[in-house]
Amino acid sequence: MSLAGLRVALLAPIAWPTPPAGYGPWEQVAYDIAEGLTERGLAVTLFATGNSRTHAALDSVVPVGINEDPALDGDVYGALHIAKLFSRAGDFDLIHNSFDWKPLTYALATTAPPLVTTIHGFSSPQILAAYYAAASRSFFCSISNADRDPGLDYLATTYNGIDPAAFTYVDRPGDYLVFLGRFHPEKGTHLAIDIAKRAGVRLKIAAIPQDVEYFRTQVEPHVDGDRVQFLGPVEREARDALLGGALALVHMTTRPERFGLTMIEAMACGTPVLGARMGSIPEIVVDGETGLLCDDVEDAVRNVPRLRDLSRRACRTRVETTFSRERMIDAYLDAYARALAAGTPPAPTASALAARDRDYWDRPQAFTDRREKPRTLRSGNPFARRS
Amino acid sequence: MSLAGLRVALLAPIAWPTPPAGYGPWEQVAYDIAEGLTERGLAVTLFATGNSRTHAALDSVVPVGINEDPALDGDVYGALHIAKLFSRAGDFDLIHNSFDWKPLTYALATTAPPLVTTIHGFSSPQILAAYYAAASRSFFCSISNADRDPGLDYLATTYNGIDPAAFTYVDRPGDYLVFLGRFHPEKGTHLAIDIAKRAGVRLKIAAIPQDVEYFRTQVEPHVDGDRVQFLGPVEREARDALLGGALALVHMTTRPERFGLTMIEAMACGTPVLGARMGSIPEIVVDGETGLLCDDVEDAVRNVPRLRDLSRRACRTRVETTFSRERMIDAYLDAYARALAAGTPPAPTASALAARDRDYWDRPQAFTDRREKPRTLRSGNPFARRS
Repeated sequence: MSLAGLRVALLAPIAWPTPPAGYGPWEQVAYDIAEGLTERGLAVTLFATGNSRTHAALDSVVPVGINEDPALDGDVYGALHIAKLFSRAGDFDLIHNSFDWKPLTYALATTAPPLVTTIHGFSSPQILAAYYAAASRSFFCSISNADRDPGLDYLATTYNGIDPAAFTYVDRPGDYLVFLGRFHPEKGTHLAIDIAKRAGVRLKIAAIPQDVEYFRTQVEPHVDGDRVQFLGPVEREARDALLGGALALVHMTTRPERFGLTMIEAMACGTPVLGARMGSIPEIVVDGETGLLCDDVEDAVRNVPRLRDLSRRACRTRVETTFSRERMIDAYLDAYARALAAGTPPAPTASALAARDRDYWDRPQAFTDRREKPRTLRSGNPFARRS
Repeated sequence: MSLAGLRVALLAPIAWPTPPAGYGPWEQVAYDIAEGLTERGLAVTLFATGNSRTHAALDSVVPVGINEDPALDGDVYGALHIAKLFSRAGDFDLIHNSFDWKPLTYALATTAPPLVTTIHGFSSPQILAAYYAAASRSFFCSISNADRDPGLDYLATTYNGIDPAAFTYVDRPGDYLVFLGRFHPEKGTHLAIDIAKRAGVRLKIAAIPQDVEYFRTQVEPHVDGDRVQFLGPVEREARDALLGGALALVHMTTRPERFGLTMIEAMACGTPVLGARMGSIPEIVVDGETGLLCDDVEDAVRNVPRLRDLSRRACRTRVETTFSRERMIDAYLDAYARALAAGTPPAPTASALAARDRDYWDRPQAFTDRREKPRTLRSGNPFARRS
């Protein structure tokens, strides 16, 4: 289908510029969406940091990424960033929100064109209250089939995609495992270390510090510069070489992964994934073909010698056919067309309403770091549906 | 003037119910505004927690105060609370925001009736960016002449007011000093202790813990149950008795006070104020008449014996004539009338724009806890004025 000329406002996160120089998966995806839609002839306005780069029109409030300048208050500039887009809502045929839950509350407050929200994950169970409240105002896209909240109805799964041309395909398997991302228990760096040591294979770690305490106690003590190497965060070109030269990417998450951009980046380089059989990973990795799914550390250690036998070409092909930027753009164009045809989101289904009334903590995919039981907005939504 | 029938939406904070049972000065003021306006015949809708009490219409998203239920996420429910009001903007002739800066960003995003924002204080210099951005969308009221940012133009100073009938006048001076409020270095509990000890007068402290470390190190070690007594937080009736029975309220702040509701509550009971000559205190306390202003601890210790000679009747009268709920309502009615007549806020004056371009940290009333230099939105506001 063609949506050429459609005026789309795309709201990117502002933790980093779009695209980011190094870490910044959400900003990277927002960049690729803006570029891809623009190439397809849509009239895209990207709302991102002032130092962003795009072929779309750029509008911004915050000069640089919040994480680039400690003096910037993320709450204040986040709110102004969102408000800037909604203050121009009349200029657009569709708004695509790729900046978490807060924009939903502005959509509740305004009369805006159809809104499509990509849910990159639920940072805490409490934020479900915002999604439930806004269910009549926004269409939702999940980034994997696994990462769906049973209390929401979804328009589509729109897998993240990358430009395969931005990654160098390497035909020969390397001799080390690689861990890429950020240091947080849920990303399982400690498991990657354990697996590499027990399998007798070198591990290279490139990540940004998020949970510093975790890094200090669970990662740093194992770094010896040889068997376990810590490279710091790596930027674009170094990342490409690091991924391409690896035997496999280790992605042993401890809670269900939502998507996992690094997995498709690795596969684009021909590098398979040694991953947990959990969350989105079984959707992204074809077990025994583009990677090996593992039930636990034992299983992973046993699988390491088999990684060499996987077809690196199959990994690359998997990205080209399913996780490329163009497939992502196709998925969004389809989602946009359906949102425009519907106008407003359908009323929640009975099963969604029932799920909202069930206790979040009874659900199968709970968060590992449980704290307080949240109150959430149940079926009795105080926001009346707009006619 | 009469604004009878005017449809006003009043946005209260949601940390506590409106009115609060104990601590909760902003909620208390919001309650008094809602009651006072309703008595004057305005059609008020109060947006507050579900367990609030009002003669106005009540609308709410959050069932109880954020501080009453640790499972409630203040960010999520704060945003939904604001969104609820703005989703009904068309129902009102005027919106009165008494809930800090975030509603300003919703006002930027929507077409709403005239908006009047009471600035209860700037919690950090960074939030000035939101006020500057919204200067063309909201009229601003300060709660004292002292608490004005030079980069903003103000519609009025609207002093907080209380219902004198809710406080029992006591004609005889008591024999103890009292500290009321919350434990934070800027409120100067440690100075009150120092002054009481050196003056040889008993001190009674009733406050909620805010800065727990401060309480543990600077307050608790001095509490002996006799010369320095800690009563915990006190609710309505106990507060009335505690204030009325005192020789004076000690209010030796270490940074400029914005208003200081406890001072007028004390004066309503006939109790004068021993206060710092700083911020709003010289506006509220008539030096030598309803209290004594002090330049430092030495000065305060010297002043303690003089407190007994002040007229307690003068204290009560000061509240009745200047800081009563009815005077506050008069001030808001006047502010509303002017906002309605103007329609939209005037363009910032040259002096306001110049002040925005000056470095915040060069200003006379700086915060004592300086950290990072903030970036703020200067004259080049990315939000174009709406026509």
